[in-house]
Amino acid sequence: MDGLTAADSKSILGSLAQHICGFDPTRISDHGLHAAKVGIVDTIGVTLAGLPESCVQILRKTPGVGDAIGPALVFGTSQRTSALDATLINGTASHALDFDDFSSIMGGHQSVPLMAPLFALADERGLTGRQIIDAYVVGIEVEHRFARAVHPHHYDKGWHPTATLGIFGTVAACAYAMKLDIEKTTIAMAIATSMASGLKANFGTMTKPLHVGHSARSGLMACYLAEGGFEANPSAMEHHQGFLNVFNGEGLFDPTPLIEDWSDPLDIELPVLSLKQFACCGSMQQAIFAMLDLAKGEDIDHGRVTAIDIGLHERRLRHTNNPFPESVLQAKFSVQYTVARALKDRALLLKDFEGEAFLESDIRRLLDITTAHPLPDDGPGPTGQWDACVSVTLDDGTRLARDVHDMVGRSGDNAMSRDELREKFMDCAGLAISSDAAAQAFDALMSLEDFDDLDEVVSFLAKS
Amino acid sequence: MDGLTAADSKSILGSLAQHICGFDPTRISDHGLHAAKVGIVDTIGVTLAGLPESCVQILRKTPGVGDAIGPALVFGTSQRTSALDATLINGTASHALDFDDFSSIMGGHQSVPLMAPLFALADERGLTGRQIIDAYVVGIEVEHRFARAVHPHHYDKGWHPTATLGIFGTVAACAYAMKLDIEKTTIAMAIATSMASGLKANFGTMTKPLHVGHSARSGLMACYLAEGGFEANPSAMEHHQGFLNVFNGEGLFDPTPLIEDWSDPLDIELPVLSLKQFACCGSMQQAIFAMLDLAKGEDIDHGRVTAIDIGLHERRLRHTNNPFPESVLQAKFSVQYTVARALKDRALLLKDFEGEAFLESDIRRLLDITTAHPLPDDGPGPTGQWDACVSVTLDDGTRLARDVHDMVGRSGDNAMSRDELREKFMDCAGLAISSDAAAQAFDALMSLEDFDDLDEVVSFLAKS
Repeated sequence: MDGLTAADSKSILGSLAQHICGFDPTRISDHGLHAAKVGIVDTIGVTLAGLPESCVQILRKTPGVGDAIGPALVFGTSQRTSALDATLINGTASHALDFDDFSSIMGGHQSVPLMAPLFALADERGLTGRQIIDAYVVGIEVEHRFARAVHPHHYDKGWHPTATLGIFGTVAACAYAMKLDIEKTTIAMAIATSMASGLKANFGTMTKPLHVGHSARSGLMACYLAEGGFEANPSAMEHHQGFLNVFNGEGLFDPTPLIEDWSDPLDIELPVLSLKQFACCGSMQQAIFAMLDLAKGEDIDHGRVTAIDIGLHERRLRHTNNPFPESVLQAKFSVQYTVARALKDRALLLKDFEGEAFLESDIRRLLDITTAHPLPDDGPGPTGQWDACVSVTLDDGTRLARDVHDMVGRSGDNAMSRDELREKFMDCAGLAISSDAAAQAFDALMSLEDFDDLDEVVSFLAKS
Repeated sequence: MDGLTAADSKSILGSLAQHICGFDPTRISDHGLHAAKVGIVDTIGVTLAGLPESCVQILRKTPGVGDAIGPALVFGTSQRTSALDATLINGTASHALDFDDFSSIMGGHQSVPLMAPLFALADERGLTGRQIIDAYVVGIEVEHRFARAVHPHHYDKGWHPTATLGIFGTVAACAYAMKLDIEKTTIAMAIATSMASGLKANFGTMTKPLHVGHSARSGLMACYLAEGGFEANPSAMEHHQGFLNVFNGEGLFDPTPLIEDWSDPLDIELPVLSLKQFACCGSMQQAIFAMLDLAKGEDIDHGRVTAIDIGLHERRLRHTNNPFPESVLQAKFSVQYTVARALKDRALLLKDFEGEAFLESDIRRLLDITTAHPLPDDGPGPTGQWDACVSVTLDDGTRLARDVHDMVGRSGDNAMSRDELREKFMDCAGLAISSDAAAQAFDALMSLEDFDDLDEVVSFLAKS
C-alpha cells in the first residue's frame, strides 16, 4: 500500500510531474507571453457571454451548486462561492457558446479547462497575474502532450478531449499554481484518471459545456485531495487497467510525449492555438473573414450589390449550406447568412444570433442573391480544406473578390489584432457587465503580468 | 436541437426510463422487502464505520467540500450540508473499508451507489421509509440490467463497475424518488453517460472509495439538472459515440436487458446480493465462517489446539496466503490470521484490524501451528472455487473439521441472520455513534417501511 502512495519518477505520471513542477517560466518568450494573454482574455470574454445561457442558469439554480460561502467569483455576477463551484459554473459558461479558442493538436478547446480553476484559485490563494500566465502555459503544454500521446484514436473513439484530456491540463495548471511537490502532483494526476469523462454523443446539447465545468471542477478537487494527503496509484497511466489502456485500448497510444523533456519551443509558442472570431460554426469563419475584409477594404454599399458568391471547401460546406435559415441554430450554421451579415454590417456580433435577426429584410434581400458552391479538393498536401473565396457583383457590373487560404480560425500569421480581440471581448462581456468595466477588464487582462494582486482585475468581472 | 431534448421511447434510455417511472412497488415480495432492508441497514453500518478513515477525513477537510449549508446529514457527525456534498462524503465513507455488500452479477458493489444519495434526498425532500426501499429496489434492478448488458467486457477492460454502472443506479433510484417524469429521467441518464468514470488502476488506494462518492454525487446532480430543464442526448447509450460503443467497444455489449420489460422475479428477489460478514478480503470469508461455525459448534478451547489446517481454492489462496502478517493490510489479506482469530475469539471484529492486534501472543501461537493448502479445481461447472474446509487437532488427538461449499459472501441460503447482522452493525456503528443510538438505528432501519418521516431514523445516525 505504501508503495502505491510514493510518486515514482519511473512512472509516466511521476515523470510528467517532474516536468510540471520543474517548469522554468523564463522559457516563455515575449511572443508566448502574448499568446497566453490572448488565450486568457478571449476565454474570460466568452465566459461572460456564456453567463445568460440556459445551461448556466439551470446549473446555478441546482440545489447545492454555488451554495457554499467562498472566495471565488462567479463571473458577471456578485456571487462568491467555493473555488470548486465557481470552477463548475464559470467552466460551463466558458464553453456554453462554443465560442472559445481551440487547438488543432488537441482536437478540442485548450483554454477552458484552465481559466475557470485558475481564476478561482487566484481568488482563494492570491495568485499574481504572472503566476496565472505561467500556470496557463503549463496547462496548455500538458494538454498537448496528452493529445500527442493518445490521438487520433482517442478523438475518433468518441471521447470529448476538451474534458477527457482537459482534466489533466486542469490538474497540471492548478498543481503548478498551488506549488504542489512532485509526489502530490503525481497523485493528483492519478486521481484524475478516475474522474476523466465526457462523450461526444452529448455534443449539440447543454451537456457539452457541462463537460468542461464538471471536469475542471474534478481536476481542481484532485489537486486539493492530493495536497491533503490523498492516495492514488502513480502508475495509473500505464497500468494494465489504467487510463491509456482503458480509454484508448492496448497499443493505441504512444506515451513518449508524456515522458520526454519539454522541448523548445513550448507549445504556447506554436501557431496551433486558434481563436474563433465569430460566434458560429468553425467551418465558415474563413468565409466571413474574407467578406469582412472585402466589404471594409472596398467600402462596399450593400444596397448596390446584385450578386454574392461564396466558395467553400465541400467538407466545410456540407453542414453550413443553409441558404435561408429559419432558426438561430440554423443561422449559426449558415454560411450564406453570416457572410451576408458581414457584408451589410461590416461586423458579425452576438446579437446577430439572437431573436429573429436572421429574418431582417435587408438580409433576406441579400440571401436571395447569394449562391454558394463547393471548392474542389486539391488532393494530397494542403488541400484547400480551409480555403474560402467570396465575391460580390455591383449594380454597374463590377465584380470584387477576396480569397483566403488555409485559415483554421484566427491563429499564427492570421492572428486576431488587438482591435479585433477588443471588439469580440466588448461584444461578449457586454452581455454580463457594463461596457466601462469591460473596457477596464480588457486593458488589465492584456497586461496581466503587471498585476501582483488580481483583486482589482477580478473586480471588473463582477456585476456591480 | 429540440429533437435531442425530447425523450424518445425508442431510444434505449427512453425505454429504460419508462420501466423506471412505471415501476410498481407492490411487485416487491416480503422476501424482497427484507432483502432490501438488509442491504440498507448493512450499508448504513459500514458507512458509519468508514467515517474515521483517512480518505473521508481528507475529503471533509477539502476546501469547498461540505461547506454549503444544507439539509443532509454527514453520517456519524452533527454536520448538515447540501445533498450533493453529503452524497460525496457518505458515499466515499460507505466504501472506505470495502466492507459493503456486493453482487456477483454486477461485478461490484450494488448498494453504495444508492444509499448516500437516497438518504440525502430524504433529508432534503422528506421521503418515507417505503419510498427509500422502493427507490433502492429500482436502483438495484437498473444496475443489474446494465451489468447484464455490458459484462464481461466492461469488467475485464478495467472499468470499476461500482462507479461506471453504479452511477446509472444512482440516477434511477434518485429519479424514481424525485418522481421525475419519463423525459427527465431519460435526460438524467443521458447526462450521466458523460459523467461515468472510475478505473481499476486505482484499486488498493483511497481513490477506490472516492469513485463511489464522486459518481453518486454526479448521478444525483444529473437528476437535479434534468429536473431543472437541462438537455442531453436521449440516444447517448446507442449513439455511435455513446456509452456502449465508447466504454465497451463496438459489438461488445447486448442492450436487451436495458430495453426489455422487467421480468419476474425482480433482481432484489434473487440470491445474488452478498454481504461481507467480516472486514477483510472477500476471498476468505467462507473459511472464517467455517471456523466460527466449528469453534462455536464444538465449543473449542483454543488453548487445547495443537494444529490448524485450512483448505481454500487456489484462486482464493493465491492472494490470501499470508502466514505471519506484519501490517494491518496484510492481516486483511491473511486467511491464517483471520481464521485463527475466529477460533480464539469466536468473532472477527473491526478492532482485529487495528493497531497491532495481529501480533497478539495467543494469535501468534496459533499461527505457528497453522497450515494452509490449495483445494484443487473440480473442473467445469461448480468448481469449488468458493469452497473452504478448516480443521483443528486437539491435544488429545481429536480432529474436528467443517466444510463450506460455494459460499460467495453471505447470501441466499447462507444469508446472515438478524443476530449476525446486528453484531456487524453494532461493531461498525460503534466507531461513530453511541451504542444506544446504534441499537435504535438498527431496529428502526429493520422496520424502515413503517416510517412516514425519516427524521427520527436519521437522528440516530447523527453524532449527538
